[in-house]
Amino acid sequence: MLADILSTGDELRSGAILDHNSAHIAQKLEDAAIEVNRHICVGDDVDGIVSVLTDIGNSSDVAVVTGGLGPTADDVTAFSAARAAGVELILDNAALASMQNFFKARNLPLTPANKKQALLPEGAELLPNPVGTAPGFLLKIGRCRCFFLPGVPSEMRHMLAEEVLPRIEKFQGKTREFSTGKDIVTFGLTESATDEKLAHFTEKYPDIKLGLRVVFPEIHIKLYARSKDKNYLSRTLENAAEWIFQKFGKRVVSSDGSSMEAVVGDILRREKATLAVAESCTGGLISHRLTNIPGSSDYFLFSAVTYSNDAKINLLGVSSSLLDQHGAVHVETAKMMAQGVRQVSGATYGLATTGVAGPGGGTAEKPVGTVCIGVAGPEGSISRRHFFSFENRSMNKQIFATAALDLLRRELLKKSN
Amino acid sequence: MLADILSTGDELRSGAILDHNSAHIAQKLEDAAIEVNRHICVGDDVDGIVSVLTDIGNSSDVAVVTGGLGPTADDVTAFSAARAAGVELILDNAALASMQNFFKARNLPLTPANKKQALLPEGAELLPNPVGTAPGFLLKIGRCRCFFLPGVPSEMRHMLAEEVLPRIEKFQGKTREFSTGKDIVTFGLTESATDEKLAHFTEKYPDIKLGLRVVFPEIHIKLYARSKDKNYLSRTLENAAEWIFQKFGKRVVSSDGSSMEAVVGDILRREKATLAVAESCTGGLISHRLTNIPGSSDYFLFSAVTYSNDAKINLLGVSSSLLDQHGAVHVETAKMMAQGVRQVSGATYGLATTGVAGPGGGTAEKPVGTVCIGVAGPEGSISRRHFFSFENRSMNKQIFATAALDLLRRELLKKSN
Repeated sequence: MLADILSTGDELRSGAILDHNSAHIAQKLEDAAIEVNRHICVGDDVDGIVSVLTDIGNSSDVAVVTGGLGPTADDVTAFSAARAAGVELILDNAALASMQNFFKARNLPLTPANKKQALLPEGAELLPNPVGTAPGFLLKIGRCRCFFLPGVPSEMRHMLAEEVLPRIEKFQGKTREFSTGKDIVTFGLTESATDEKLAHFTEKYPDIKLGLRVVFPEIHIKLYARSKDKNYLSRTLENAAEWIFQKFGKRVVSSDGSSMEAVVGDILRREKATLAVAESCTGGLISHRLTNIPGSSDYFLFSAVTYSNDAKINLLGVSSSLLDQHGAVHVETAKMMAQGVRQVSGATYGLATTGVAGPGGGTAEKPVGTVCIGVAGPEGSISRRHFFSFENRSMNKQIFATAALDLLRRELLKKSN
Repeated sequence: MLADILSTGDELRSGAILDHNSAHIAQKLEDAAIEVNRHICVGDDVDGIVSVLTDIGNSSDVAVVTGGLGPTADDVTAFSAARAAGVELILDNAALASMQNFFKARNLPLTPANKKQALLPEGAELLPNPVGTAPGFLLKIGRCRCFFLPGVPSEMRHMLAEEVLPRIEKFQGKTREFSTGKDIVTFGLTESATDEKLAHFTEKYPDIKLGLRVVFPEIHIKLYARSKDKNYLSRTLENAAEWIFQKFGKRVVSSDGSSMEAVVGDILRREKATLAVAESCTGGLISHRLTNIPGSSDYFLFSAVTYSNDAKINLLGVSSSLLDQHGAVHVETAKMMAQGVRQVSGATYGLATTGVAGPGGGTAEKPVGTVCIGVAGPEGSISRRHFFSFENRSMNKQIFATAALDLLRRELLKKSN
């Protein structure tokens, strides 16, 4: 089964935004053992979309099309799809009713522009969109089953998982193979060092496709296999994962794709422990990442983003003579910040960062990329100094935050073992 | 002049990596007033590449192709290009000499695999690559001038600027047009309401291409125009921008694409004012966004992420009877948090959020999506309550943070006017 992916939109065509959607769809299709043939991107232009859809109709079995289903004048995908299939647009009552419900529940008026979104090509099957206003649809063009989804990433992802992939699975019928994967998240090695450690993997596990994906600063080791024998598949994959755990040890953060902050949160919850954070150079990012996890209020109490020295002294009780002696970026300062925020909040653990994210503020002794991390807990405090040479403020903030959460994770693991 | 962009590579096709190259090339071509028609991505597959190149040769004037010029077996682009053009691969002595120099200068041996990279389609013009081993080339396929570049981003970008764009400029000859754009950032209206407000724009400014881009929760209004007359171009664009400023008033955050946090930072710096933040439901995101701006330590002093009620009471001095009476999510609580963080930090302004980001924690009276925002300054305090119906934790955090920064921005503008 051969698939094409089409994304539409002037902002994609002109390079103003990156096409995350097509990459996501490609990954999910490949995970479902469907071969992706091409990605194509065209602008909000009827002739361009019709021409590509006609071509896809002649050459592919299945296609996922995103974008251009919104209420505005430049949303022309449904119209173009109808033309490529040689049918008319007609009002879909189910689509209209679902939009009416969506707007009613939010106490918003349904505008004529929104009503336009209920016009679907004749013969199309409605794909409901519970998370937004634009419904999707499935339409056969030539020999290809084309799924049309909105371009808003959260809506597209939801509908791909709930509406598109289950239908494609049905189309595959008896030729279906089982496929399964593992997403092992690691932190602490570069991409090439990770690659080196995996040198003999393919000899040992020839049936398993291995891929590295950098989700900076973490590296995901993706294992992927397909077979008609489901038991063989899961056994082989377990063995391969075990081999990787042996090689990477504590550098393995999770084996199910869970993020560092989710893993730290899980351990804290399991241990009935609480956490408070004092951030300098990470500027709130640790706290933001921790609170992205639903239910984080169970263990996350408080974070103090103490950018200024005054804030470090007054709010965290860091001694001003220590700051005079060592400066703000120092392992002792990080330790005192962690102790201070732990005390002030009453949390089980305190975590602290102080460093130089850049672009300014670096010195010969403490260049941009230097970070000191402190962890304070019931059994005492530790701190570490690291240097990362990315010379980029946003990357530095990310890797400082991950390194801090990682130090806490390793301390928590010591205690829970 | 119509352009296509083709990227090749299995890791792009399968979604393992994002196609940053094509977006970069599209931007540069549009800046040079060349219309990008399509992006296409195929895997490392001779038939696939030949088929797309043949199609491009029939439909486009110019194409930029990236990837597949390396030394390994899956690098098949030069071979495919030759086949699409109906010519043979021949050894290019200039390409070989340049590679020999590259390796000699680095004291590395030239392998037979590298020698393969000096095989170019007959009739191709060599495009030198001073920053890597893979040379590029220019080859006419059908009616289209196709530029073949390596996929390594740094090499591709260098060669695009030095070799490709100057040649395209020559092809354009006297027909060369100037192009310019504006990126007006707005906040406070939905996409369809924004679109409605712009209803008569195209009648008034037919020469200007208008596009909306949602960078949630902000909406960018993109203006883009090209003309042979540079002065006319900039005058028209200024008038069009002025028309939009009139329509959107204070909803315009910036007219140069600057983010909300950058604009707030600029005003604070200009006013020599400082800021402290107390975040509950936004969990550190406001602070993270403010500190993403280099130099933010000039005005950003401190943020307290007070997730627990205890933290709100002990650290910000919010009265426990107030919390008992109204609960944490209340305009009075937000106001007291803003006053508290202002006092505790000594900042000119205090900004605070308290709300329900979800998925849990909502009630009939305060459903998920409710946020209260407080601003405290030298002239007193205000607070506002909003409700956003996204039902998504991460979107709620983003829009809560932007709404908070926006309230502060509007208060700052009142004072600075």
